[in-house]
Amino acid sequence: MAADNRQAAQQALAPLRQQIDSLDSQLVALLAERAKVTAQVGQIKQQFALPVYVPEREQALLSARREQAAALGVSADLTEDVLRRIMRESYATQESHFVCCREGGGKVVVVGGAGALGSRFVSLFQRSGYQVQILEQTDWPEAAQLCAEAVLVLLAVPITQTAELIAKLPRLADDCVLADITSIKAQPLAAMLQQHAGPVVGLHPMFGPDISNLVKQVVVVCHGRSQQQYDWLLQQLTVWGAELAVKQAAEHDSAMQLIQAMRHFSSLVYGVHLADEQADLQQLLQLSSPIYRLELAMVGRLFAQNAELYADIMLSSSDVSSLLQRYQQRFSELLQLLQQQDKAGLMAQFAKGQQFFGELAGQFLQESKQLLQKAADGRS
Amino acid sequence: MAADNRQAAQQALAPLRQQIDSLDSQLVALLAERAKVTAQVGQIKQQFALPVYVPEREQALLSARREQAAALGVSADLTEDVLRRIMRESYATQESHFVCCREGGGKVVVVGGAGALGSRFVSLFQRSGYQVQILEQTDWPEAAQLCAEAVLVLLAVPITQTAELIAKLPRLADDCVLADITSIKAQPLAAMLQQHAGPVVGLHPMFGPDISNLVKQVVVVCHGRSQQQYDWLLQQLTVWGAELAVKQAAEHDSAMQLIQAMRHFSSLVYGVHLADEQADLQQLLQLSSPIYRLELAMVGRLFAQNAELYADIMLSSSDVSSLLQRYQQRFSELLQLLQQQDKAGLMAQFAKGQQFFGELAGQFLQESKQLLQKAADGRS
Repeated sequence: MAADNRQAAQQALAPLRQQIDSLDSQLVALLAERAKVTAQVGQIKQQFALPVYVPEREQALLSARREQAAALGVSADLTEDVLRRIMRESYATQESHFVCCREGGGKVVVVGGAGALGSRFVSLFQRSGYQVQILEQTDWPEAAQLCAEAVLVLLAVPITQTAELIAKLPRLADDCVLADITSIKAQPLAAMLQQHAGPVVGLHPMFGPDISNLVKQVVVVCHGRSQQQYDWLLQQLTVWGAELAVKQAAEHDSAMQLIQAMRHFSSLVYGVHLADEQADLQQLLQLSSPIYRLELAMVGRLFAQNAELYADIMLSSSDVSSLLQRYQQRFSELLQLLQQQDKAGLMAQFAKGQQFFGELAGQFLQESKQLLQKAADGRS
Repeated sequence: MAADNRQAAQQALAPLRQQIDSLDSQLVALLAERAKVTAQVGQIKQQFALPVYVPEREQALLSARREQAAALGVSADLTEDVLRRIMRESYATQESHFVCCREGGGKVVVVGGAGALGSRFVSLFQRSGYQVQILEQTDWPEAAQLCAEAVLVLLAVPITQTAELIAKLPRLADDCVLADITSIKAQPLAAMLQQHAGPVVGLHPMFGPDISNLVKQVVVVCHGRSQQQYDWLLQQLTVWGAELAVKQAAEHDSAMQLIQAMRHFSSLVYGVHLADEQADLQQLLQLSSPIYRLELAMVGRLFAQNAELYADIMLSSSDVSSLLQRYQQRFSELLQLLQQQDKAGLMAQFAKGQQFFGELAGQFLQESKQLLQKAADGRS
């Protein structure tokens, strides 16, 4: 393009870009004002013990704005995406303190409270007005004293140590709640019921220590004994924003093998395979469209996390290896189809998966597309 | 909470919620104004043949707003996320028409132009001022006439038919560009060079027909012959927003086996495995935190797509099955470690993956966290 031509283009664009900058500046000012108001909302919610996240209010707010957007010829989806991102921020800023769901608070002991996930719960209990004590390896000589008059003893320790440490616990007050957040539930729950005659509940927070808040995160609840005596704890989780899912321990554990152990193991093998193939990561990235970059990220992210934790989850039950045995069997069957160039056979297997996922496949495709659009926003 | 108490809370919240609604209403009005201005920007860019996406301008705009946000005590990341989402929308609205990068346009023949991806390119060429002809199976008797005086013949057909259809092509004008968008490159490129004495280039768009636009999408370019004669085509791709990555065909193909075939095959096996295990999908979803829902979505999305296309990609090269053979070997080695309860052995393999991904693992973890936050925005 000729120089004078380029200059003409810049002259035509300059005033429009100034308009955009001024509109964006007004936008940022709006965000600032809104943050002030939502901070006040947060204070009132604390004062009246209301949850930070109120689905009905969120829905009403969004649909009103979608209508307005449509009326003004703006994309309703754009409007909703922008508002959801803004609301996420306000949830985060609203949770500096939480209402305490137990009359008078009380002492909470977090075994393993110095760990990554344990410390998240320590902070949450502290910000909710409880007196929190941490019980780490070196503190066991004082365990009896630490746990005296505790209203809750929460185990946040590696799977491999859970049973042993439950057995090491001192005698707890009859009304003290004993709970754990181990990612398997049957064994720890049985161990807690044996150790303590009072209220017992098994919890599995379905998230890692890396989340910014508990809003919309799932916590599985496996009832143990005397539920009415730990209702305050479940209510507290809800106030933090969590969604509770009540399950039988055994039911939970077998589902977890499919959800977690399978996933971790296949990602582990996938990463090791890339390493052994001496793949050129930079080239893979350069050649990866957003979807493949995300696929690779879902594998690679595993290796930024706690190897021992994942090994423990995989080793936690012999069912896992028999499950993986069957996976390997299916892998080799499909590989044979491939080696025999059996296209029809491969497509029949594909059809099986299509039938299994049903409408959800299309829904997942939609979800991942929307995510990729957002991932694309972030690239530059 | 007592009824009067609840009433008091609602009374305290009502005026604040009205303020929020009014601020959000102003926000939507801003979005409408901004859309008007960016539409004018789009027209000027077409007039002067400027690309829709200008990284430098985007960066300048974002950093100015981040500074303002920080000054006002608003999260800079929130501000950037919101602006990126808005800009994505404006890219999409700016591409109703594109500048034509070839003097006088000319006739473009898209073989397979009725297909999903082919029709995307038909539309892009049409919106860029080219005269587009589609050549489908029934049109081959008229192929010579259709291709006469074409400036570009683009093959957008299934891998399995590419070689055969290249050979079926009529004699093309000496200056006609022959190109393909097959997801393997070595064989089609060789076939095209043999078939046509004029300019030849192999392309691989690293995306499916489902994307909303080409902005920031990668297109691999494998040079064939007489590059200067198809520079206009590469420039056209850039105007559409694509990022070009020049590769040797063989280099591209081996990378694709790792990026695509491996991924498709393991997702296929994973889905078939879940089906054969008769997993309870609804329960898996209920128990899945955002990260595991995303893992499941990345598998499930495969089954909403074209089974034959994926089968063809997997079957396209015998190297794929030997690659998968080695994958299976590693899978069984790691499974043995698991069956032997060899925790140290598993962790050593984990360490191998850690070393391979290096700093990228942490970066991927960050990326996926941010994506999950956005996914959480979308849940309700």
